[in-house]
Amino acid sequence: MKVPDKLISFLKSEEKYFIVTHINPDGDAIGSSLALSMALEMLGKETFLYVRDPIPEFYHYLPSYEMFTNSISSLVTHHSSLILIDCNTPKRAEIEGLSFKSSVVIDHHETEEAFGDIQWIVPEASATGMMVFYLIKELGISITREMAINLYSAIAIDTGTFRYGNTTPEAFKIAANLVEAGVSPAYISNRLYETWSKERFALFSMTLNTLEIRGAVAITYVTQEMYQKTGTGPGDTENFPSFPRIIKDVKVSAFFRELGVDSWKVSLRSKGDINVALIASQLGGGGHKNAAGFVIKSDLGSAKETLLKTLQL
Amino acid sequence: MKVPDKLISFLKSEEKYFIVTHINPDGDAIGSSLALSMALEMLGKETFLYVRDPIPEFYHYLPSYEMFTNSISSLVTHHSSLILIDCNTPKRAEIEGLSFKSSVVIDHHETEEAFGDIQWIVPEASATGMMVFYLIKELGISITREMAINLYSAIAIDTGTFRYGNTTPEAFKIAANLVEAGVSPAYISNRLYETWSKERFALFSMTLNTLEIRGAVAITYVTQEMYQKTGTGPGDTENFPSFPRIIKDVKVSAFFRELGVDSWKVSLRSKGDINVALIASQLGGGGHKNAAGFVIKSDLGSAKETLLKTLQL
Repeated sequence: MKVPDKLISFLKSEEKYFIVTHINPDGDAIGSSLALSMALEMLGKETFLYVRDPIPEFYHYLPSYEMFTNSISSLVTHHSSLILIDCNTPKRAEIEGLSFKSSVVIDHHETEEAFGDIQWIVPEASATGMMVFYLIKELGISITREMAINLYSAIAIDTGTFRYGNTTPEAFKIAANLVEAGVSPAYISNRLYETWSKERFALFSMTLNTLEIRGAVAITYVTQEMYQKTGTGPGDTENFPSFPRIIKDVKVSAFFRELGVDSWKVSLRSKGDINVALIASQLGGGGHKNAAGFVIKSDLGSAKETLLKTLQL
Repeated sequence: MKVPDKLISFLKSEEKYFIVTHINPDGDAIGSSLALSMALEMLGKETFLYVRDPIPEFYHYLPSYEMFTNSISSLVTHHSSLILIDCNTPKRAEIEGLSFKSSVVIDHHETEEAFGDIQWIVPEASATGMMVFYLIKELGISITREMAINLYSAIAIDTGTFRYGNTTPEAFKIAANLVEAGVSPAYISNRLYETWSKERFALFSMTLNTLEIRGAVAITYVTQEMYQKTGTGPGDTENFPSFPRIIKDVKVSAFFRELGVDSWKVSLRSKGDINVALIASQLGGGGHKNAAGFVIKSDLGSAKETLLKTLQL
């Protein structure tokens, strides 16, 4: 993976950066942003980290997560350069209307938009964290343990800890480097997979009880009422979409999360060659081949039927 | 990891090998043996693969698994050299009393015995599959896709697919090589983790609904009635005991499986330093530090109380 020369010169030349990632940030969004911020600070730059939403408690083991702020003002942005990371439009980060001195995009999500003075978009990268790894190396900085924990977590989240179809030889080589830089794979796995609250576990049990299998599609859902009953929230549903893939004959898992009255966020997870990004984009959303999503405004029953009709599995 | 020179000369000089692994073979035992056999055959050697037990159906995706036999006779062994793999004593493979022309041990389990004309034992290796990888390279053979699938599976099983404490930089580097040789990490994960039947999934959901948390102990159970309702059996409960460890504050997961009227098999799984083998042995059972079990004759309520009293957590 070749880091564009103009991106390197840009990062060396500017002084003040607003690093911004997408709403409802995941491990790749948070970890990539933090590692990049640490590297730029080591170059003597000033960085600000912004995300619309709070960092989920689940990710509070990530070194320096508390550096993220969710307040931003146009007064401070226009002297700074924007680095939009793990997303590629201001809309995805909900920072439309703010103006910056200049802007860079670093992302592994496909896009047809051409936002940013410099765009570095590598859809083949398993995670934005991999791109940031190469970028930091190219900036001539050694990866610290803190950076490594952030980058390893970014890659772990986006590859299902080396289990998804996007797990490349490069992902493994970078992981080897990050372990050499001080990451403990068992510690990260413990934090990612063995830190559920009792409430979250209760929500999970309740979600599994909603399972409906329609052909090769496993459907599960979470309602606002289920959050209330268990004392949980949307942040507690991470990984829920993937779980039903454990069933042999299931090719796509569709997880419906109630946003409000007749409004659902649908997360799709597929096995092998089934491209759910195409399905999601037909329904107004997007994502990757094996992990995508969309929002649908209708009751649950109709939402399910719409999806099944589009999937045709 | 340095492969002993005398092992390389030995493998180049002999002509006929009996490759033998331990009883109840796991992925590392099977995969390492198969990859080594393939490499030696490419050198023009004759190899036989022996294991006392049938290869579990679960591992029937491993290329050439059907080359294993579970019959062996002293008539054929004494002209051949023994390669004992993923174990280090004839007892562990139940081949005591057979005589071989010469013998080699390749293993990553610690031992105090000194069986074998040549011993190559590397306790720091995450899996015997890693040792076989280096050995094949050292023999000057390129890793084929079939070898790679066997070796990757060996490493995946022994490291929990890169999640356990034994996941080293070397494990990642070898994984990168094996993916380059044609392994699909998603395919292997699919075979290892995504082959549950719908019935098994239904039993799992039902089991999670039985969760009761008592201090740091998570209790779940399966009854005969639950098997009947879901069309499952005791064989479908594999991995159920471990799952509740996902909960942060849980230190021990206790899974009760109904054997008959007032008779329960209890499986204990602990985190970190908690030794459940001691608890199990106090209750007439046994096992390892983090995974043990016992049988108790009483109703479920009393059985739980007996366990909790013994655990004192």
